[in-house]
Amino acid sequence: MITLTIIGFGNISQHLVREFSNSKTVKLVQVFTRNENATFNPQNFNFVHQFSNLIKTDVTIIAVSDNAIAEVSDAIPFENTLVLHTSGGIALSGLNPKNRRGVLYPLQTFSKNKSISFNGIPICVEAENESDLAIIKKIANSISKKVFDIDTTQRKSLHVAAVFVCNFVNHLYKIGSDICNEHQVPFTILQPLITETANKTLQLSPHDAQTGPAKRKDFEVISSHLKFLKNSDNKHIYEMLTQSIIQNG
Amino acid sequence: MITLTIIGFGNISQHLVREFSNSKTVKLVQVFTRNENATFNPQNFNFVHQFSNLIKTDVTIIAVSDNAIAEVSDAIPFENTLVLHTSGGIALSGLNPKNRRGVLYPLQTFSKNKSISFNGIPICVEAENESDLAIIKKIANSISKKVFDIDTTQRKSLHVAAVFVCNFVNHLYKIGSDICNEHQVPFTILQPLITETANKTLQLSPHDAQTGPAKRKDFEVISSHLKFLKNSDNKHIYEMLTQSIIQNG
Repeated sequence: MITLTIIGFGNISQHLVREFSNSKTVKLVQVFTRNENATFNPQNFNFVHQFSNLIKTDVTIIAVSDNAIAEVSDAIPFENTLVLHTSGGIALSGLNPKNRRGVLYPLQTFSKNKSISFNGIPICVEAENESDLAIIKKIANSISKKVFDIDTTQRKSLHVAAVFVCNFVNHLYKIGSDICNEHQVPFTILQPLITETANKTLQLSPHDAQTGPAKRKDFEVISSHLKFLKNSDNKHIYEMLTQSIIQNG
Repeated sequence: MITLTIIGFGNISQHLVREFSNSKTVKLVQVFTRNENATFNPQNFNFVHQFSNLIKTDVTIIAVSDNAIAEVSDAIPFENTLVLHTSGGIALSGLNPKNRRGVLYPLQTFSKNKSISFNGIPICVEAENESDLAIIKKIANSISKKVFDIDTTQRKSLHVAAVFVCNFVNHLYKIGSDICNEHQVPFTILQPLITETANKTLQLSPHDAQTGPAKRKDFEVISSHLKFLKNSDNKHIYEMLTQSIIQNG
């Protein structure tokens, strides 16, 4: 078994703790968190609250916010173990070189109140050498069927693209929901449309899947929609995305 | 059986023709199209190419582009039959009052190369009186389990909201796909994220579901993403949607 430390007990970290608690490949030894009241059920590992109390393990996964990764990797009290971060936006070189460095980036949106099966989540892996890459792949394959070799620049491009297809998309859902609420229409009426739009990407390229007034250059409908929108922010978003569809297809 | 005429043989119309060809409630008598070479398989109705050749039926569904609806409703050679349009953006009053007027608006994105089951598609209905509304509901219920009473203003709000959650969302998928292509990353890596983001709306409000750098006000990541984006259009979209998330949650 590969012995494992997880540092951080936030959103992604708790999902990882759940996965590795049941692993036959990895023995989760300890979880580091500043929060002295942290609990987890079932708990078959130790909570550690000070870096000096960490026991040396084969692998450490740093699952903290991007801007804390460098500091945490400096604070790890071991050398020459394998230390991974889980961030899409941070380079491999963002980790302290006193340990062997790698990345295990699960590309998914994690919410605390929605459970998710790791099995279908793409995990992007990177390491400094082949033997470390093999260890990371072994760990990644133990929780997901979709493991990809992705270098730092590619991972960054995925992270940026993910903001467009997840965070920005979700914000458009929010605007749609606000417009429904304003007119006493249940947002659930839009759910089949949301699902079908997402499912289309499995069969058609987004370019081929496009429909609607901007794609048809139907300026009459576009201008009636702009008149209908009262919120100036939403009006601006409507104008800009319409322009972008007209210009880029 | 309710006898039916469908006018138009475009995208939505062909989906409706397919549905009503198999109906036990509705007898599709004829389909009007300017295209004299139109074919449909199996074809158990007549194609008609001139308005003067239309046979009078109980109901006529006008499924043409928004800007042709008024003209087509003028050209119908009957009076006092029930005439419906299928548009989200056109008022009930957009139809010629020589016939009884109604709306049957299927709220979905239809692509010619992707089949879809009508059963789960929300259909928004409206009429001028209760007896016509009952007929329209009978027709709508024969192809879908989700039929909603929606007035003209509510329908317009749904149409505008649909542009945000479908057309604009699809455009963000396209930008994500372009970014992946540019860096030789398969777009399929983003598919589970796209699906999960859409599925989340079934359990969480879009406001509660939001994640990512804008939600966290992580200005370091935001500025590194803006530096990474070379396309000025995408950069502008990134800035504006980030701003909107920060301001409106």
